[in-house]
Amino acid sequence: MKIVLIGAGNVAFHLGPLLKSKGHQIIQLYSRSKKTGLKLSGKLKCSLVNDPKKLNSEADIYIIALRDEVITSFVKNIPFIPNLIVHTSGSSGLDVFPARMKNTGVIYPLQTFSKSIKISPKKIPFLIEAGNRKDLVKIRKLAKSISPVVYELSSYDRELIHLSAVFVNNFTNHLFTLAEKLLQLRKIPFDILRPLIMETVQKIQSDNPKKTQTGPARRGDSAIIMKHLKMLKDFPQMKVIYKQISNSIRDEYEY
Amino acid sequence: MKIVLIGAGNVAFHLGPLLKSKGHQIIQLYSRSKKTGLKLSGKLKCSLVNDPKKLNSEADIYIIALRDEVITSFVKNIPFIPNLIVHTSGSSGLDVFPARMKNTGVIYPLQTFSKSIKISPKKIPFLIEAGNRKDLVKIRKLAKSISPVVYELSSYDRELIHLSAVFVNNFTNHLFTLAEKLLQLRKIPFDILRPLIMETVQKIQSDNPKKTQTGPARRGDSAIIMKHLKMLKDFPQMKVIYKQISNSIRDEYEY
Repeated sequence: MKIVLIGAGNVAFHLGPLLKSKGHQIIQLYSRSKKTGLKLSGKLKCSLVNDPKKLNSEADIYIIALRDEVITSFVKNIPFIPNLIVHTSGSSGLDVFPARMKNTGVIYPLQTFSKSIKISPKKIPFLIEAGNRKDLVKIRKLAKSISPVVYELSSYDRELIHLSAVFVNNFTNHLFTLAEKLLQLRKIPFDILRPLIMETVQKIQSDNPKKTQTGPARRGDSAIIMKHLKMLKDFPQMKVIYKQISNSIRDEYEY
Repeated sequence: MKIVLIGAGNVAFHLGPLLKSKGHQIIQLYSRSKKTGLKLSGKLKCSLVNDPKKLNSEADIYIIALRDEVITSFVKNIPFIPNLIVHTSGSSGLDVFPARMKNTGVIYPLQTFSKSIKISPKKIPFLIEAGNRKDLVKIRKLAKSISPVVYELSSYDRELIHLSAVFVNNFTNHLFTLAEKLLQLRKIPFDILRPLIMETVQKIQSDNPKKTQTGPARRGDSAIIMKHLKMLKDFPQMKVIYKQISNSIRDEYEY
């Protein structure tokens, strides 16, 4: 497909080269930032624009990889009716597109991207949606060409998955940050926790997390819980998080 | 070393066979439960007792792998002075042993164990401590014989690490459980999140979690945060956890 890619953030930095490597033609890149735009357009060997008015109107599909809050204002400024336009967001629906655009959709990669870390396309589930059957076929074909795992879902289901992703990715990562902070109190390297973290997720690759739960809150060991809360006395926010999650574990197992 | 192993829970089920495979001699197993006791003593090919009074007094070391709250009452009932006695707990100190026992220590495997899941010994950091220098040498030698990663730490440091482990293991696992619960609302399989979870921890194997943080709270995207809180209206506890962790992320990056 002939593609115009819009954005040069983490998602575009992974999606662009992936699409190109599967034989698609990226004819143009839009980026507000000249620096990251040039970096990515150099990689994709395509032209670069920084104004929606200058978008090439000939592409088969326009893929928007911008932050949620700027999508609507961006698409308003496109001066023509795109053949097909999609965004890559987990938490926006099709309603971000103006009514004059009839061929719209979503292609949301359910993965966490950093510019510096390579990810196997096999590990990216794509969640897709479209305004009509014909476009869904096109989007599915595009998604299938770059990943073996493609789910067709409604906006609501995608939003629910995005919310779950916040819990398992963003919040989990923050728990790691809090743990690192605790260890720094005694200059203990974070490295000491890495094997445990790895095993924590290995366990749930085949098992159900509800089954693999362990720890003081799971056992109802209130002596240890009290001790931990005391150790957290100088970290009020961490203490509240400790309490809340422990309560939630307790309620989950109803002892 | 000639070892008496005390307990037949998750830790003993991994530690026993590991010690045996490295050439140590397990001469006796203690277990209150006959069923799990027989299972493990069969594996270790050693005798089984269910009364501390019947412990063999000839071992070089007694390794206690019991729950924290029963250690003290158990050791009180040992009718002799052990050559060397250690426990395997992250959150108990040396003070669980009575004063009459002079040769005491800790050998705490910082890992999450399930009976059904095998773990490479390379992935188990052992945190050790002893009441005196001579015993520390013995315990270090034992630990080094079964794992390449051994840290000598005070009880306080070990407790701090145990608290950090609760955050990265127990709490993380519970976040996975909460995410699964959300997905069940729309019968979406948990499988859809597994690649993301894997990548979340892959990222921090080489990088620092503070650096890899992403998501609405990190970006300060209050529109998405409000939307998510609304979606959680029927899950008050999850809503509080969402709010607290989001606040904590916001404070961490001070925007």
